Amino acid sequence: MELWFTEEWLPGLKISVRVKSVVYQARTKYQTLAIYDTHWYGRMLVLDNVIQTTELDEHLYHESIAHVPLFCHPNPKEVLIIGGGDGGTLREVLRHSCVKRATMVDIDGEVVEAAKKYLPQWSTGFADSRTNLIIGDGMKFVKERKEEYDVIIIDSTDPVGPGEVLFEEDFYRNVRGALKEGGLMVAQTESPITEAPTVRKIAGRIAGIFPVVGVYTAPVPSYPGAWWGFTCGTLGKDPRFPVRKPDASWGLRYYTPQIHERSFDLGPEMGRKVGVSPAAGDN
Amino acid sequence: MELWFTEEWLPGLKISVRVKSVVYQARTKYQTLAIYDTHWYGRMLVLDNVIQTTELDEHLYHESIAHVPLFCHPNPKEVLIIGGGDGGTLREVLRHSCVKRATMVDIDGEVVEAAKKYLPQWSTGFADSRTNLIIGDGMKFVKERKEEYDVIIIDSTDPVGPGEVLFEEDFYRNVRGALKEGGLMVAQTESPITEAPTVRKIAGRIAGIFPVVGVYTAPVPSYPGAWWGFTCGTLGKDPRFPVRKPDASWGLRYYTPQIHERSFDLGPEMGRKVGVSPAAGDN
Repeated sequence: MELWFTEEWLPGLKISVRVKSVVYQARTKYQTLAIYDTHWYGRMLVLDNVIQTTELDEHLYHESIAHVPLFCHPNPKEVLIIGGGDGGTLREVLRHSCVKRATMVDIDGEVVEAAKKYLPQWSTGFADSRTNLIIGDGMKFVKERKEEYDVIIIDSTDPVGPGEVLFEEDFYRNVRGALKEGGLMVAQTESPITEAPTVRKIAGRIAGIFPVVGVYTAPVPSYPGAWWGFTCGTLGKDPRFPVRKPDASWGLRYYTPQIHERSFDLGPEMGRKVGVSPAAGDN
Repeated sequence: MELWFTEEWLPGLKISVRVKSVVYQARTKYQTLAIYDTHWYGRMLVLDNVIQTTELDEHLYHESIAHVPLFCHPNPKEVLIIGGGDGGTLREVLRHSCVKRATMVDIDGEVVEAAKKYLPQWSTGFADSRTNLIIGDGMKFVKERKEEYDVIIIDSTDPVGPGEVLFEEDFYRNVRGALKEGGLMVAQTESPITEAPTVRKIAGRIAGIFPVVGVYTAPVPSYPGAWWGFTCGTLGKDPRFPVRKPDASWGLRYYTPQIHERSFDLGPEMGRKVGVSPAAGDN
């Protein structure tokens, strides 16, 4: 028996992965959830038929979304993660010993429960005493917070369905309000190669609210376009330049301070298309 | 009517692209050939059901395979391309005005003819007076050349079928023999993320023959793993460091001297897996 999972990455572009076994399937209050063991991608979390994270490349995504903003801050103590139910971003945030509290707000508690059971590589951080897990609406949560966080990471699903509000101007304005002085935010913002206009639009919104904005990338083969974009908004810091560096004992698989700086260099055409990278003017 | 092209990227991993129209189809002496207009990838060349080059990302591939080796050479006059029937690599090579002759050896003349007719974005170089197009066996061709070329670019298909010999030790030894003093070669060598052992094996072979070897990458979404690897072998030069730079008038879309240097930085895990990058020890 051959079992294949197929996602329509973009209209007219599909990826299909052969499934070795179905580890878990559920319909949560918000979405359908499946965890598969697959060929090439290894263990894989799927929400509403969209691949969220895979064993093959989750380190590329999670190390990039967490360490780029955290290493731009000299001493991040309070970190907020919106989304990120699988736990991968939380795991990376908690490597920073200066972090006193990592608050994670995910709307779907069933994703977190499934991750704890079936995604052990991702979910180690849920047991950490510094973790403050809140099952709730991230949009409402940030609205009520004023100058509480050093770093805010928006590890959302795509800008369709339940994740859509997390790409709106109002939301970014509230994120800015929830940051302490010297703070910064990062959001996953789709692929600058297949969806440059989307990245430009979202980055433009963030640029309307934050004084400094930068778009950076990481290769994430299981996502459409396979070259993923992240947008940083800061209250003054240049996000290209890390001010601390990881300890060798962390055993990071992808992130280095050099890769951090380099990830903001999109090349002349993509830099132009995306429009707001602080590195775009360098070439 | 919905027409989809599907390629099994790797066993258990498929990509499907919706086809707007079939531009051309043929069975050549060596392989099946199709040119499609598609959603997202735009115009696309397929050989033996494997995507070779697409309008979306061909610049990422061709600028990387051509300019990285050429800019490492202070004055490349004689350049040899093995394969590359679509013409994209040739187009980039000819941007260098120091190049007096670009010899291209492709085994399948029907690919070149189809490119001239149906891939105008790629095939501009065939009309250049510096182009020396030879339809023939690249393996035999290099065997008979001694110290004739400054740069040799191996723009082959995958290491299965007709392209397989272009990944063998004997071939690389002949490539070395065909290089002038101070020369260097580059080959497309599969994806370091999905096929790290293959990249390691091929790069290891090249390292057995060339004194200096480096693996670098470019994002190429239409190839399996989406993050593509190239291996440089040089007779002494460090391939990470360009010694000339492109003219702004060329209008390059991706390559810059900064991206050149950065492309050799695979991060700690991939650097370790691939094994021979000169940059791997830097982090």
